[in-house]
Order: sequence, then structure tokens, then C-alpha cells
Amino acid sequence: MINFKEDKYLNKLNHSCAHMMAQAVKHLYPEAKFWVGPVIDTGFYYDIDLGDKVITDEDIEKITREMKKISKDGKRIVRNEISKKEALEMFENDPYKIDLIERMDEDNTIISTYTQGDFTDLCRGPHVDTVKECKYFKLIKFSGAYFKGDVNNKVLQRIYGVCFPSEEELNDYLQELEEAKLRDHRKLGKDLKIFMTSDLVGKGLPMYLPNGYIIWEELEGYIKGKEKKLGYKHVLTPPLGNVELYKTSGHWDHYREDMFPKMEVEGEEFVLRPMNCPHHMMIYANDIHSYRDLPLRIGEIARDCRFESSGSLKGIERARSFCQNDAHLFVTPEQIGSEFKKVVDLILEVYKELGITDYHFELSLRDPENIKKYYQDDEMWNNAEDKLREILEEIGIPYTEKIGEAAFYGPKLDVQVKPAVGNPYTISTCQIDFCLPMKFDLKYVDKDGEKKTPVVLHRAILGSIDRFIAYYLEEKKGALPTWMSPVQVNILPVNNAYHLEYADAIYDLLKTKNIRVELDDREEKVSYRMRESVLKKIPYTLILGQKEVDNKTISYRKHGSEETITVSQDEFIKLINNEIEMKK
Amino acid sequence: MINFKEDKYLNKLNHSCAHMMAQAVKHLYPEAKFWVGPVIDTGFYYDIDLGDKVITDEDIEKITREMKKISKDGKRIVRNEISKKEALEMFENDPYKIDLIERMDEDNTIISTYTQGDFTDLCRGPHVDTVKECKYFKLIKFSGAYFKGDVNNKVLQRIYGVCFPSEEELNDYLQELEEAKLRDHRKLGKDLKIFMTSDLVGKGLPMYLPNGYIIWEELEGYIKGKEKKLGYKHVLTPPLGNVELYKTSGHWDHYREDMFPKMEVEGEEFVLRPMNCPHHMMIYANDIHSYRDLPLRIGEIARDCRFESSGSLKGIERARSFCQNDAHLFVTPEQIGSEFKKVVDLILEVYKELGITDYHFELSLRDPENIKKYYQDDEMWNNAEDKLREILEEIGIPYTEKIGEAAFYGPKLDVQVKPAVGNPYTISTCQIDFCLPMKFDLKYVDKDGEKKTPVVLHRAILGSIDRFIAYYLEEKKGALPTWMSPVQVNILPVNNAYHLEYADAIYDLLKTKNIRVELDDREEKVSYRMRESVLKKIPYTLILGQKEVDNKTISYRKHGSEETITVSQDEFIKLINNEIEMKK
Repeated sequence: MINFKEDKYLNKLNHSCAHMMAQAVKHLYPEAKFWVGPVIDTGFYYDIDLGDKVITDEDIEKITREMKKISKDGKRIVRNEISKKEALEMFENDPYKIDLIERMDEDNTIISTYTQGDFTDLCRGPHVDTVKECKYFKLIKFSGAYFKGDVNNKVLQRIYGVCFPSEEELNDYLQELEEAKLRDHRKLGKDLKIFMTSDLVGKGLPMYLPNGYIIWEELEGYIKGKEKKLGYKHVLTPPLGNVELYKTSGHWDHYREDMFPKMEVEGEEFVLRPMNCPHHMMIYANDIHSYRDLPLRIGEIARDCRFESSGSLKGIERARSFCQNDAHLFVTPEQIGSEFKKVVDLILEVYKELGITDYHFELSLRDPENIKKYYQDDEMWNNAEDKLREILEEIGIPYTEKIGEAAFYGPKLDVQVKPAVGNPYTISTCQIDFCLPMKFDLKYVDKDGEKKTPVVLHRAILGSIDRFIAYYLEEKKGALPTWMSPVQVNILPVNNAYHLEYADAIYDLLKTKNIRVELDDREEKVSYRMRESVLKKIPYTLILGQKEVDNKTISYRKHGSEETITVSQDEFIKLINNEIEMKK
Repeated sequence: MINFKEDKYLNKLNHSCAHMMAQAVKHLYPEAKFWVGPVIDTGFYYDIDLGDKVITDEDIEKITREMKKISKDGKRIVRNEISKKEALEMFENDPYKIDLIERMDEDNTIISTYTQGDFTDLCRGPHVDTVKECKYFKLIKFSGAYFKGDVNNKVLQRIYGVCFPSEEELNDYLQELEEAKLRDHRKLGKDLKIFMTSDLVGKGLPMYLPNGYIIWEELEGYIKGKEKKLGYKHVLTPPLGNVELYKTSGHWDHYREDMFPKMEVEGEEFVLRPMNCPHHMMIYANDIHSYRDLPLRIGEIARDCRFESSGSLKGIERARSFCQNDAHLFVTPEQIGSEFKKVVDLILEVYKELGITDYHFELSLRDPENIKKYYQDDEMWNNAEDKLREILEEIGIPYTEKIGEAAFYGPKLDVQVKPAVGNPYTISTCQIDFCLPMKFDLKYVDKDGEKKTPVVLHRAILGSIDRFIAYYLEEKKGALPTWMSPVQVNILPVNNAYHLEYADAIYDLLKTKNIRVELDDREEKVSYRMRESVLKKIPYTLILGQKEVDNKTISYRKHGSEETITVSQDEFIKLINNEIEMKK
């Protein structure tokens, strides 16, 4: 999607449109006072004090009409520069503007205002030349917003909008927005009964409903199966730990603000873990290791909890409790390259199998101008970075180098994807870590009999299972592949009086084949039940009528297709089992 | 095991033996001062102030010798009664006794002392007649113990012991103790690398190592598979919730002291959940339900966290974080009986399959003398209790009725088992709950179109997976059935030079059959490697030598058997696969 803040012209245009909206509001509600009206990634908004009045849909219509009038009128937008003193006089009846002006540092600052017809606003600009340019706009939504974001302050009315240079661009955008909303995982998650949220359970604590947990189980089994074949050993560790553990790892000093507060019992301090690396370090430390045991790959579908501000919460994409598809690979320095390659291979294999195509690799490296920022071991860094580059070149995947974006503890590879709504995020990652093994004093006995410190690769393939489900639902618009679908087959007897017995038999048959099947024998028309089956995105809908009863066949319609195909029972079972096994 | 506190004679005898031990200590260390020396479930102990001295194994030997001398000497144990004033004078040089005497309430209390030869101790008694009776004793262990259990106080030396009326009883007990120690799940868990604990990770937070997680996965798959066949729907919910959720459920008022302290973020209070019932109630409440949808069975392998005092922690049997094999069955009042029966059937089926035989059913009912203690609905209670009894009679399992032991919210059935060391505990449970659905205002639309409140059955079959693993390890002395064993087959080539190639081929063959196999090709004698395989309790150890190479056969020894059996490769695979499938 377009980023209004980053596009220079759209930024200016939307800023002007925000002023025009304020002007329209002022015309309609003369008592209105204005706080701020910035451009954001998704357009613009303005926070308005309307006294006790709360904006309604009708107000939005009225404001829209007034804005159109103003735009048609086509006044020029004129910049003026005044002193702080003049500004304080000009806006003396507006406590919000006074608040802004008073916070401007120096007394002799030049302050700019922008005026269009009867409306003047305090503003740094820039703006477009005339309000005529703001013709193609749309007010998107409105909500209450605390003054300065503080819950103790007054609630202002916030109206969001977008503006484009042409009608076509506006319409394209609005359509894209509609489509994105439809495939937003929060909507799909609710419609398809995948997960629920509830403030009583707690903000940012989504719960998987039976449908969602089936998807979860399939994904968990899928990725653990792949990892097992690659020699990973899985463990299970608790979602909290002693604060000392996080002091040892350094998280307590550097990550505490993203953690839940500590809990004290019997003089011991516990904290919900934001990540499970320290637990895995302790598992390594529990045994003596020889170079022959490495690489040691410790994997876990690990429950972590992070404090995310309520404003940044987003369904299962960004929650306060989630499970990472995590693993820590303990390797000798010589094994970094080969082990990294195996991780990249696994990422690519999984993406290919799951049909994920729209992603981007980013390799984060040290900033050579500023090497003091990083863990000090030039040879280790150079070798690792060279090796990582070399492997990516060898595999031949395009990637972007992000100089200076490496973690303090080592270089890393991230795979970025885009959600339906909002900013891109990382799914898969592989991070080289030279430091954590040292902090936990981890050792292995090398060929020469000497104790040496292993290197750790932190890696996640699906990222968090939660975020992956969010992403995958949006990618597939809710129509999951058969192997992952909560309900794989929906059976519709055409007429219960004649066809229910046969439908029941097919239901039982599919059950014995471990296929997730439902039977919809409600006394409703087939077309009605068919439509519901489509809305539920069930991969196979069987329509069983007289012909099927007579010939002992199965007629099915596949999700996304209008064609009805008739096959024998055996053929159908072979077909669907094959599809499930091949993860299609 | 015997309970020394509950057996009247053993109690008296052990108390006298504690005095005799104190006398011996006084002989050897005249500066010793004595705090308390009570009888406990497992024998007796005495807390002794030896200044800076710390007890050693040699001290225990010396004390034992001295005790034997005193016992042989055979002095009578004589009771005397004195006033509080006289007691304060008698023990004026002993601050610990003064502390005890001063806390005795009234000034004119009669205080008793017991004297044997040169040793007098303050004591309520009773005691045996002479120290002769204390001949068959054993000092079991020793440790430091804070005075009055307060970490800010001085560390005293605590010595534990037991005493029996005959040598035979003592020896039987000591042997039993040795065996119990060997099958204590904490020892097995460490030896077999099933789980680890670490104070840095946090007290009461065990972590499953790869071997342990395989057992976990097998059990999880096993019980979820059974539940799925019975129509359970599984969900996944987070291990914490808003405090308001627990206020709604009543846990906050009645269970808070067993919970971790709350955490406040953004003005919202969160708490680690001690149980997941409220989350499941919210899942029910998320949808509209008709009587046709009931019973609705919501299951989860659910992560819960409870605050247990550090003194009561015990490996994975009793930890601060664990996963329940939990489910909530939402039923109409008419369905209580049939659904309860299905739960009991499932319990019995699982016990039979897993070979659990030493258990005891307890049916906890309302106290009819005190019905005000319970949720008020006579008809509901009577019907439910009658139904539960009737079903247990019908199934024909012996059970004990525990009048007055029902929960406030309804009657319940518990299945009790005994661990190797310590007190019995509950594994399976089924609790009828009339109240929680009301607190969450849950409804279903009945046949008559009216909204009614469902009844909830809380049930757990394996209890917590953690505790079940602890119990099962002890029951099986670590020798798990093949399907659950972390390593199912261990291959020993007799001589690497000649037999490794064949061993490798068999290893690969078993791998492709999804059997968990290891190959021990260390340059050690077969007998040595065999012994290690036995210690690891691996179900099948294959010995592959020239005969096997020549005939393409497999010779195996089953854990617990001394016999070596030779079969064809196909036969072996059939045999082990059958065993895994049949869960033998």
C-alpha cells in the first residue's frame, strides 16, 4: 500500500486536506477548537475539541459536503510568518494552539501560519497552492482520542482521511483498502472462528478457537517434522524465569521495557520471558559437550510474553503472548556457514511448499565505520559476514544488504513480508550470536582437548506460529490449503428424505480416513448451504443427490471453482488424501 | 510407606529416639544446644546448634556409635513435672529452651521433662519406658535448617532418623527407602536426561530435555487422539489473564494465595493463571449455543502457573508451571450422568492401556448436615449425586464416599495414586460445577426456546502431563513402554571393523520406519555398551555380529530380559511396530 508520509507530494496534499477539513468543521461547528492534524502513513487526521459533541456518520457526510464546497471555491493557500508574540495574540482564544506555541523554544522564533479564505492555521507547511488540489479526498473513519494520548485528559474527536491528485487514484486506493479489510486476519479470524479476543481475558491475549487450533496443530506438526528430519532436538521450557537469568543474558538491562513487570515470591523475582534463548543456553550448559556433538540444534515451540503497548496490538499478528517457532543451533565457528546454509534452505523449502512468493531477504551487517558499536572480534565478524554473503550468492536469492543494521552480537538474515493492513514485518530470521554463549560460559571440548566457546545461531522459520497464521490467512484470503483447513470436506445431502442415509455413510467413510468432515443436513436449499460452505472457505463441498446415491459416486465442488465434478468414492479419497499428503 | 506420625507406637518410639540422639550429641559435643526434635511422617529429626560446626558423615558415624552405647546401657526414661518458674531456672543456660518456655501461655502451667541418665529434655511426651527400646534406629540424613525457618536466623544442624521395634522392620524399611529413592522421578529424570532444574532458571520451573519432550509429545498425542475420537474440540489459550477475569470466576477472592502476584501494565492488571476454566468459559460465551450443540467439550493441554512454597516443590510432580490435560464439558442438567460416565470410561480405558493398576476412586459429596456450605439447589445436588453413585455402581468400580468433601460448586470424583516418595495425590478428576457457568452468565437455548444455564464438568485424565510423567516414571521404574520411550532401539555392532556397515544399514532401515533409534559404535566391549543400554532403560538393544551380517538377521535383547532372540529384519520391524501401535 501507498505510504502517505513518505511520498513527498501526497504528504503535502494530505496536509492541506487536513486544513481544509478543519475549515469545514469550523464552518459547521463554530465552537470547534483544534489540536494537531498530522500526515501519517495511511493519510491524515485532525484532533478536534467539539465540547461534549461526539462525531456521527451524519456529521461526516455534512463535513464532506462542506469540504467539497470549499475545494470548489478554490481559495489560494497563503503562508505568513509572524513572531511568537504575534502568534500568542492571534490565537489567544485557542488554548490548544497556545499550548503548542508556548512549547516553541525561543522567544524570537519565526512562526508560520497558512490561510485559505476565512481559515488560518498554525503550521510549518509546506502546503499545496490552492484548496482546488484537494478535490479527491475521502474521510475514512473517526474515533475518540485522548488529548496528548493521556487517559486522564479530555477525549477529542479524531477524523481520519486520505486525499489523492486524481479521482482514479482515490478510487483505486479505496478499493484496495476494502479488499485489504476483507482479508485482514482480524476479520477472517472472527468470520472463520479461528480466534477470539476479549478485554475481560486481557488486551493482547487472543485465544484460539477449535478451528484455529487445528491450523496451529497442523503447522506445529509440519515444522517440527521438518526440524526432526534435520536432527533438531525439541524441548519444552516454562514461559517465565528468574530475573537473574535475564540479568545474566543481558535482557534485563537492554530489553526490560518490552517485558512484563517482575513478580516477587519468597524473595525470588520472576518475570515472564520475552524470549527463550536463556532457557536454551541453560539446557546446553546442563551437559558436557564435545566437538563431536556439534552442531547441537535445540528447538521449541516456545511460549513467550512481551509487553506491547495497547495501541500496537493487532490480533494474533502482534499480541502480548505468543509462541515462537524457535531454535538455537550451537556450532563451532567453522560450522557457521554450513549451518546457516541449512537454515536458508529450510526457509526456502517451507516457503515453496506453502506457496509463499512475496518476500524479501535482508542481510544485516556491521557498520565498518563504527565497529566499536559491536562485539569486538574482527576476524569472527569478517569470516561470518563473508560466509553469509557467499552462501546467499551461492543459493542465488536476491537480498538487500543493510549496513549497520546487525545486532550488537552478530550479523543476521531476516525475511520480510507485508500484511494486508499495516507495516511489513519479519517472519523468518537467522541471527549469528557470538556473545550469549560467553555470557552463559558455554563450552565444548575441541579436537585438541581445549575448552572453547560455541557460536549460537538463533533462528525461526515460521517466526511466531501466531504471526504466521495471521500472515498466511491474509495471503490465502482465508482459503487455506486442504491439509491445514479446520474442515476439509462439507457434505450436503440434496434432500434429507432421500439422500441423508448415503450422506451419512460417506461421512462415516471419510471419518475413518481421518479426514475432517462435516455434514450439513439442515432443511435449507442446497444453494443456500453451498453459499455458506463457500463463505466458510471449506476446500471440498460434496453435493449428494439421487444420481450419487444410485451410482455410489461423489460429486464435489472445490473452493474457488464453479465446476462440479463427479468421481467414485475411491477416487475421491485418493484425490483428497494425496492433496493432504502433498500439502497442496 | 509407613507414616511415623500416625502410628501411635512408632510415634512414641521415634520421639524417644530423638532424645537419645540429642543425648549422644551432648556427650560428643558438650557445647551443643538443642532447639526442637519432633516426629514427622518420615521419622524424627532434631535441630541442634553446634556453633560454627557443620555435621559431616563421620559425625553421623560417631553419633550412631554413641547412641548404640546409650541404648545398650538401657537407662529408664523418667517423667518429671515442674512449674514454669522451675523450668526457666533449670534451662537458664539454654536460650532455645528459654524461648520455648517463655512462649508457654500461663505462668502456672505444669511443664514436663524427661530424663534418661545424664540427659534431661523439656518435652510433653509420651515416651517409651527405657532407651533399650530404641535399639533399631538409623540416622538417615542431615542438613542445615534456619532457626524457626527464617532465612535471617542462624543455621542449625538438622539430623533425621528413624527407629523401629525390630531389626527386621528397620531393614525392611531401609530397603524400601533405597528402592523408593532409586525410582524417585527426580533421580530417574536426571539419570535418563528427562528434565532438568536450575535455580538460575527459577525454583519450581523444570525444563524438559529432548528425551523428556519425546515422552511429552507421545502422551499429548495419545490423550488428544482419544479426546478427538470422543468429539472433544481443542483450543489454545494464553497462560495469563486480566485480574478481572479471576474476579468474575471467584479465584481472585478464594485462590489468590496460590497465585503469582499480579502485574500492572498500562493500568491493566494481569496475573498468571492458576487454572484455565475462566478462559474456557469465555470461549463458550463467544458463541450462541442451542441444546443441540451440547455437550460441548472444550479441551486443552493448558499451561498454568501456581505459587507453591519452595518447600513443597518436587521435580515435575509439583512445580510452579505445568500443563493440565484439561477439558470443560458444557452439558444440560439431563446430560450430567451420561457425560460423567463417558469420563469414567475414558479414565478406565487409559489406565488399562497404560497398565496403571494401583489407584483408588474417591467420590466427594455434600455434607447433608451442613448444606449451607454449598451452592443452593437441592434438586440439582441430589440428582447429580444419585447419578454419580449409580454410574459408579453400574460400572462396578470400588470407591470411597467422602461425605462433606465436595467442592462448594458441586460433587466430584478423584482418582488417587501414590508416588515413590511422599504423600498420595490426585491424577484424574471429574468435577461437576453448577456455579461457574452462572458467574459467566453462560446460556443455551433449550428445546422450549428458553435460555438456560449449562452445567460444567471440569475433568482431567492424565492430570497435569508433568505430574503424570513423574508418576509413570516411578511406576515403571524408568522403563517406559516402547511407544513412549525416547530411544526405542539401540544398535551395538560387535566389532566396528566387520559389523559397522550392517549396523548402519539397520539404523537407516529403522529410521525410515520412524523408529527412534541410536547406534552405539564406540570402541568399547559389547558387554560394557550393553550395560549402559540397560541403564538407559532402552526397550530394545540389538547386538549385531558376524552371524547377523551373514544371515541378514537381527539379534535383540528386550529391557528386563536376559534372553537374546534372533529374528529376520522384517519380523523385527513387524514386532516393534505392532508393539508401538498397540501401546504395549
